[in-house]
Amino acid sequence: MTTFISEAESAALVDDDLALEAAREAFLATRTGSTFPVVIGHTSLPHTRFTLKSGSAGELAGVKIGSFWPDNTDLPRHSSTIVLLDPATGRLSAVVEAAAANAHRTAAADALAVDTLARKDSRTLTIIGTGHQALHEVRAVSRVRPIERVLVVGRRADAALEFAAAVTAQTGLPAELADAEAGVSAADVLVTATTAQQALFDANWVTPGTHISAMGADGPGKQELPVALYGRASLFCDLPEQSRAIGEFQHAGSATPVALGAVLAGAATGRRSPEEITVFDSSGFALQDLTLAAALLRRLSSGASE
Amino acid sequence: MTTFISEAESAALVDDDLALEAAREAFLATRTGSTFPVVIGHTSLPHTRFTLKSGSAGELAGVKIGSFWPDNTDLPRHSSTIVLLDPATGRLSAVVEAAAANAHRTAAADALAVDTLARKDSRTLTIIGTGHQALHEVRAVSRVRPIERVLVVGRRADAALEFAAAVTAQTGLPAELADAEAGVSAADVLVTATTAQQALFDANWVTPGTHISAMGADGPGKQELPVALYGRASLFCDLPEQSRAIGEFQHAGSATPVALGAVLAGAATGRRSPEEITVFDSSGFALQDLTLAAALLRRLSSGASE
Repeated sequence: MTTFISEAESAALVDDDLALEAAREAFLATRTGSTFPVVIGHTSLPHTRFTLKSGSAGELAGVKIGSFWPDNTDLPRHSSTIVLLDPATGRLSAVVEAAAANAHRTAAADALAVDTLARKDSRTLTIIGTGHQALHEVRAVSRVRPIERVLVVGRRADAALEFAAAVTAQTGLPAELADAEAGVSAADVLVTATTAQQALFDANWVTPGTHISAMGADGPGKQELPVALYGRASLFCDLPEQSRAIGEFQHAGSATPVALGAVLAGAATGRRSPEEITVFDSSGFALQDLTLAAALLRRLSSGASE
Repeated sequence: MTTFISEAESAALVDDDLALEAAREAFLATRTGSTFPVVIGHTSLPHTRFTLKSGSAGELAGVKIGSFWPDNTDLPRHSSTIVLLDPATGRLSAVVEAAAANAHRTAAADALAVDTLARKDSRTLTIIGTGHQALHEVRAVSRVRPIERVLVVGRRADAALEFAAAVTAQTGLPAELADAEAGVSAADVLVTATTAQQALFDANWVTPGTHISAMGADGPGKQELPVALYGRASLFCDLPEQSRAIGEFQHAGSATPVALGAVLAGAATGRRSPEEITVFDSSGFALQDLTLAAALLRRLSSGASE
């Protein structure tokens, strides 16, 4: 029997704990699972976009269809549908609409990187970007470290102020605006969540011991981090090959990033000292979607949301 | 709202008329629609296979997930799920399980080619191959031409006899076994539906005026037709680029096949004379699946199956 979880149901089922555990499972699964080529399609309106990300690991196999419809006004511009196949038969097993859950999933990957790589005593979180996803990033990251204040760096002061208010409303943390130099240099954890195509700050502003999670770069030409940073930082990512092809590390020259899954599995070293600068690039992969869908299905069947 | 059509429902809704009209719509849509790269995935059992075929045309956009699980015994080894997106919003619109309907869809493409390219007075249909799909091919083709007898060419006599009996049971037509030379030389319409990797017959056996529909070749190395045929035949296919990459015409050298959609639209010429030999290669494309799903949804909502 096929299980169907609607957008309203998945939005009610998901939370940061579920997303974080699904992310951990997904990153560990990168060690043995498979990820297949990403397809980018469109409708007869060429500025629409749907992306197929497929993979398999253990008992999971399926595809995430992510949509970006820029003209949507009443509905979110992003939507997401995860289709799981029954590994025993190949037949349809579950369909999970997961637009809201997808934002948790993406933030959870960065939170997992922070939990794995940032200094335990990280207290200042700086966020560059003031969009919908950025708010999820702040909430998820602030749960894995003893964050005491949030610095908000945005291009538009009105949007940044509104964002800072939303941060405080969601997390209880004080949030204040900062310019890029002040925000970057004060950060213990720096998260970038923009659609930038060039570096957002000067590498010299980054102080020793900072952890940086970059989640905005997911296509050729996108860039958030300064190239000069790579000479003095240790690089980590979800899928090294993909990160160097379409992620932030397309700009990192010959540097070889370490897979976060290897660090989680104890097969590679994470942070080596309190002074080290660590950088994590998230380009996104299908196993995150498959483990998210499986976690939502488990929670549905356990009735934990009721 | 998302509409879900289960395997049992789609199997009850589909018939040859619906599949033929959906095929016609799909082939016409190749003129303006888009087809995106095919992805072939597998589970942690590497001999399983799932294939993602995506595309868009007009109001349709989505993906077909086709599965091939060779170890299935109680269930069919092939299954199929079609996911449609709402073109206005990008959100999930419908999920259609369509394993049984998929066999109709594939046969309908070959029947459409026969209807477009074969001589109107085609009376002898020869089928090479005695599998599940071959039976669908015979039934669909015999509906578009005044077929009076079916010749069955198979490697194993017992399977061929059983197949011939099934042909008569399904179509009412007399069906008899033939060797390849007798079957090919007597054919007005010749359909090949095998998993062969080399030519199934000698090009000299093909008589003037024959139409050939080849549906078995859908991957590198697969082959059903003799290369010597191409010097004396006119070539047609679903998607010329794909047919030359992974279809039968990967063996056709520099010959340029004509898209059947162009013939249907009146933009290219089909059969030019009663003596011409026409060859159609079907490699399969996503728009067939999208139009099939849309036709099933229309029939569901019209209640025509009740």
